[in-house]
Amino acid sequence: MDKIVRINMGTEGGPEVSIGPLGDYAGFGGRAMTSAIVSKEVPPLCHPLGAANKLVIAPGLLSGSNAAMSGRISVGCKSPLTGGIKEANSGGQPSQMLGRLGYAAIVLEGKPTDDTLYKVLINGDGVQIVADNSLKMLGNYDLVGKMKAEYGDKVACISIGQAGEQKLSGASIAFTDMEQRPTRHAGRGGVGAVMGAKGVKVIVVDDAGMSKRSPANPDKFREANKTFVAGLKKHPVTGEGLPAYGTNVLTNVLNEAGGYPTRNFSSGRFDGASKISGETQAEMENTRGGEGSATHGCHKGCVIRCSGTFYSKNGNFLSKQPEYETVWAHGGNCGIDDLDVIAQLDRLDDDFGLDTIEMGATIGVAMEGGLANFGDGAAAINLVKEVGQGTPLGKILGSGAAVTGQVLGVERVPVVKKQALPAYDPRAVQGIGVTYATTPMGADHTAGYAVTANILGVGGNVDPLRPEGQIELSRNLQIATAAIDATGMCLFIAFAILDQADTFQALLDVISGFGGNDLTAEDVTNLGKSILKMERDFNAQAGFTNKDDRLPAFFTEEALAPHNVTFGVTDEELDQVFNF
Amino acid sequence: MDKIVRINMGTEGGPEVSIGPLGDYAGFGGRAMTSAIVSKEVPPLCHPLGAANKLVIAPGLLSGSNAAMSGRISVGCKSPLTGGIKEANSGGQPSQMLGRLGYAAIVLEGKPTDDTLYKVLINGDGVQIVADNSLKMLGNYDLVGKMKAEYGDKVACISIGQAGEQKLSGASIAFTDMEQRPTRHAGRGGVGAVMGAKGVKVIVVDDAGMSKRSPANPDKFREANKTFVAGLKKHPVTGEGLPAYGTNVLTNVLNEAGGYPTRNFSSGRFDGASKISGETQAEMENTRGGEGSATHGCHKGCVIRCSGTFYSKNGNFLSKQPEYETVWAHGGNCGIDDLDVIAQLDRLDDDFGLDTIEMGATIGVAMEGGLANFGDGAAAINLVKEVGQGTPLGKILGSGAAVTGQVLGVERVPVVKKQALPAYDPRAVQGIGVTYATTPMGADHTAGYAVTANILGVGGNVDPLRPEGQIELSRNLQIATAAIDATGMCLFIAFAILDQADTFQALLDVISGFGGNDLTAEDVTNLGKSILKMERDFNAQAGFTNKDDRLPAFFTEEALAPHNVTFGVTDEELDQVFNF
Repeated sequence: MDKIVRINMGTEGGPEVSIGPLGDYAGFGGRAMTSAIVSKEVPPLCHPLGAANKLVIAPGLLSGSNAAMSGRISVGCKSPLTGGIKEANSGGQPSQMLGRLGYAAIVLEGKPTDDTLYKVLINGDGVQIVADNSLKMLGNYDLVGKMKAEYGDKVACISIGQAGEQKLSGASIAFTDMEQRPTRHAGRGGVGAVMGAKGVKVIVVDDAGMSKRSPANPDKFREANKTFVAGLKKHPVTGEGLPAYGTNVLTNVLNEAGGYPTRNFSSGRFDGASKISGETQAEMENTRGGEGSATHGCHKGCVIRCSGTFYSKNGNFLSKQPEYETVWAHGGNCGIDDLDVIAQLDRLDDDFGLDTIEMGATIGVAMEGGLANFGDGAAAINLVKEVGQGTPLGKILGSGAAVTGQVLGVERVPVVKKQALPAYDPRAVQGIGVTYATTPMGADHTAGYAVTANILGVGGNVDPLRPEGQIELSRNLQIATAAIDATGMCLFIAFAILDQADTFQALLDVISGFGGNDLTAEDVTNLGKSILKMERDFNAQAGFTNKDDRLPAFFTEEALAPHNVTFGVTDEELDQVFNF
Repeated sequence: MDKIVRINMGTEGGPEVSIGPLGDYAGFGGRAMTSAIVSKEVPPLCHPLGAANKLVIAPGLLSGSNAAMSGRISVGCKSPLTGGIKEANSGGQPSQMLGRLGYAAIVLEGKPTDDTLYKVLINGDGVQIVADNSLKMLGNYDLVGKMKAEYGDKVACISIGQAGEQKLSGASIAFTDMEQRPTRHAGRGGVGAVMGAKGVKVIVVDDAGMSKRSPANPDKFREANKTFVAGLKKHPVTGEGLPAYGTNVLTNVLNEAGGYPTRNFSSGRFDGASKISGETQAEMENTRGGEGSATHGCHKGCVIRCSGTFYSKNGNFLSKQPEYETVWAHGGNCGIDDLDVIAQLDRLDDDFGLDTIEMGATIGVAMEGGLANFGDGAAAINLVKEVGQGTPLGKILGSGAAVTGQVLGVERVPVVKKQALPAYDPRAVQGIGVTYATTPMGADHTAGYAVTANILGVGGNVDPLRPEGQIELSRNLQIATAAIDATGMCLFIAFAILDQADTFQALLDVISGFGGNDLTAEDVTNLGKSILKMERDFNAQAGFTNKDDRLPAFFTEEALAPHNVTFGVTDEELDQVFNF
C-alpha cells in the first residue's frame, strides 16, 4: 500500500488517472487516511456535490494482510447529508483486495463536464476508466451481475445504485461480499451521492496475481495474531453471541433494557420484538434451506462471522441476514414485526444503494407525518420502492429523515447534524446519546459504542439511565474507535479488547509486528485523538458549533417508557467530551 | 397600542386568550417588538414548528396614527426556512387597524393538541377564537371571500393558504389590501408554516368604532408629517418612478446595469427584459380596462402609491400588479418573458400563501435540475399548482430552493442561510451581496438595500462592481432599516431620507411629535443597532457562525456576464459588517 490513485473526473476530454506515492499521507489507513485527505484538500464550505469535494476510499492499515478482522474499508468526503466531514465504514471484499494491489486510497476528484457514467477497473495492470451509459439506473444487484459476467467471478465491486445516481443524501456505496453480492455498505451520510456526483457507477477491483501483504516482523505478527484470534473466540460477545445470531442478537437485549426505539422513538419497548429477534430469525432460517442460521464473515479474514443469509419463505435467496440496525430501523421503529417484510426492505435498500438506518428512520418520520400507518409493511415497501423509481416522493424519502421531516412538517425528527439516530434510544442508553450528540459524524452508534458499558457489561458498567459517567465513557470510546477505524479492523474487536488486556496487547503486537515498529497503548490513543481533532476542525470551519452537538429537544422533554426517563446529560457536560 | 394579546393554542380544552400590558416591551413596535419577543421568549434551539416557537405579529410604532406611510406590519418567529430569527414585513390594512384597536402585538403560542383549525376575531369587544374546520385547505382568496361574507366588507384578514396549512418552509402570511384582497404578504422565511403549526387559519381584524391614535404633540406631528410627505413627493424615486410604474420600474434599470439575475443566476442580463418591464406593464394595463396603469397604496396612509392591479387579457381582475421581485423571480430568473404568465404565478402564490421570491428561485433551481425548461411558462404554472394540491412534488417546491436543490441534487442553489436570493445579482451589485450574506434574516434585499448607492445614485454612489465601500454601505443601511422597520413605516421612505436631510429631520419630528419625546438621529441609529444585536445573538445561540455569513461559492467562482465579474468582498471584510 504505497500508492494513491487519483481520478480527476473534471478534466476536459474525459477523466484522468494519476497514481502517486503516499507523500504526506504515509502511515495513514482507513479513517485516518480519509479524514486526513478530506480535511487537508476539501474546502469546508464547498458544495458536497461540487467539483471541490473529493470521495476518498481507503483500506485500513492492515488490510490485505493476514491479520484477522482487517478487511474493513473507509469512505470519506464532505457529507451531503450533514454538511460536515464523513467517514462511512464497510465490510466486504474490496478492502483486502485493494490492500494487496497496493492502493492506500482511491480519490475521486473534480466534476464531470457531462452526464456520462463511468466504470473503473483496478487490477494488477493499473487503473482503467471506461464510459458505460448502459449502466444507468441499474440497481446494485443487476450491476454486479453485469460486472461478474464481464470481469469474472473473482472480482469485487464498489458501486452505487439508483439512489447514488440521483445524488440523494441517503445514498450508500455498496461493497460486494464473499458471495459477490452487493450487501455490505458504507451507508451513512450520503457518500453514494458524492460518488454519483463524480459520475462513477462502479469500481471493479481484481487482485488476480497479487499476494498478501507481508509483515515486517513475521514471527511477532503470526504469534500476536494467534493470541488475538484466541481472545476474540473466548469473549462471550465475539465468540458466542455474534456468531450464533448475528448482530440481531441485540433485539431482545435492547428491548428488555427498554432502550429499543419504537414507532419513531415514541417508546423504548416494542411489543413485536420477539417476532423479529435474532433468536426467532435463526429458527426461521433453519427451516428455509440454504445454510440455515450458520453465519460467515462479511470479508475474508473475519473470525467473528456475524453475517448470514436470508432466504424467502419459498427457499430462495432474498438478502443478506438483515443486521440489527436494519431489523430495528425497518422493524420496531416502523412498528413492523415481520422479518420477511424487513428482509425485503433490506434487499431494496441494498439494491437501490440506500443507508438502511437512514431509510428506516425516514419511513418512521413519514409514518408520523401520515404517509402510512405504523406497522404497515406493504406501505413501507412501496415507499422505499418510490426511491428506486425516482418519483418526487422517492426523492424526498431518499434525502433522509431531516428533509422528509421538513417537507412533511413533522416536528419529531430523530436526527443529529441531520443524520438519523440508530437503534438505541438515547434516553435509556445515555452513553450512546452522548456519542450521537457529539461525534463529528452526526448521530452514529459506531463512533463510540457506549452500549458496551451501558447495556452489555463490557468494559465496565455505567448505569444507562443516568447521566453520570457517560461523558468519559463516550469520550474514551470515540478516541479508541477512531484509532480502530484506521487499522481496517472490524469495530467488533472492541468487545474483546475492552474486556481482555491480553487481547488488547495482542492487537498492539499485530500492528507492531506488521509495521515493524513498537506501538503502545498511548500511541493508539494519540492516533484516535488526532483523527477526531482533524474531523472537529473541519466541521468548525464548515460552520458547526457546540449547538450542533445536541440531541433534538424531544429527547429531553418527552419521557420514554418503560423507564420514564429523559436524556439527562447537560449541554455543559456535552461540551466537555472533546476536552482532551 | 398599550396591550399585547397572547393566544395559547396548546392549552387543554382549547385555545386560551389573554390580554396584558406591554411590560418590558413598552416602546417597541414592528421589528423591534417581534425581535424582542422572539429573542427573549423563544429558545433558539427549539423546533420552529413546535410548542416553544411563537408567532408575533406587530404593527409599527406609528401604525394606526395619521403618520404617512405607517401601515407596515412585522411578523416574527424562529424561521422554519433558515433556522434563525425572522422578521417578515408586509403592507395591507391590518397594521393600521390593529394600531387603532390598541394592540401592539398578537402572539400565537403553544402547540395544538389536535388538528382543529381556528379563526380569530379581533374587534373593539375583544378577542374571540372559534374552531372552523370548514376553512381547511382553502386558498387565501376563497378564505377572504368567506370572511367578508361572514364579517362584512370592512374587516381585514391575516391568513394562510394551503402552503401554511401544510407547514411548508416557503409559506407566507397574507394581509388584505385596501380592496380586501389577500395580496400583501409577509413572505419570507416560512412564517406561514408557523401560523399553520399553531392551527390558526385566519385572524379577522375589525376596527369599527375605533379612532386613529392621537399624537402627544399634535401641532409638531401635523407640521412634520406635512414636510415629510412633501419630501417624499419631491424625490424622483418616491415621487415619480414608483408611482408611475410601481416597483417593476426596476426591471429595465437592473437589466441595463447587468445585475438582473437570469436563468438561475447564470447571467446578469435577460434578453426578454423589455417584455416584462414596468414600462411595458403600464402600457399593457392601459389597454385592459379597470384603472389601467394608475397606482394606489397597499395600505391607507400611503402617499407613494406603488401598488397596482393586473387585469387579464379579457379584462378581468387577475392579481395585484406583480412587484418587481415577483416579476423577476418568476420571469427573468426562470427565463419567462410573459407578463400574463407571471401574473398568473403571482396569483397562485398569493392564493396558496407562498413567498414569490422563494418560489421563483425554487422554480429556477427545479429548471436547472431538469424538471422543466427555462422559459416554459406553462410548466412553471403547473409546478406551482402542485404546491396547492399538496402533492409530493409540491411539498418539495413549497419547502423552498435549498430543499429543492438538495432533493434534486442541484449544486447551483442561490441561497444564504437557506433563504433564496432576491432580484439583484451580488456580483454586479456587490453592496446588496454584503447584505444577503450578513443580514441575520438570510438573503434579503430589504434588510439593507444597497441598490440605492450601487445603482440608483441615492444616498451617494458606490461602484457596484467593486468591493470597495460595500461593507460600510451595507452596515449603515442595515442599521437604518432595522430602525425603520420598527416604526411601521414603508422602507421606501429611505430613498427620500437618504438624499434629503430635511425629510429625514421631518421623519424624526413625526416620531417625536407622536411620542412626545425628542428623538435624534443617534437614537435612531442606536435603535437599529440594538435590534440587529438581538437578532445576531439569537442566531448565534441557534448555532450560526460567520460561516453562515457567506454567499454560495459559485458567486465567487463563476464570472457574471455582461461585466464578467465575481463577488469580490472577502470573508474577512464580511466579518466586519457588525463591528459597531
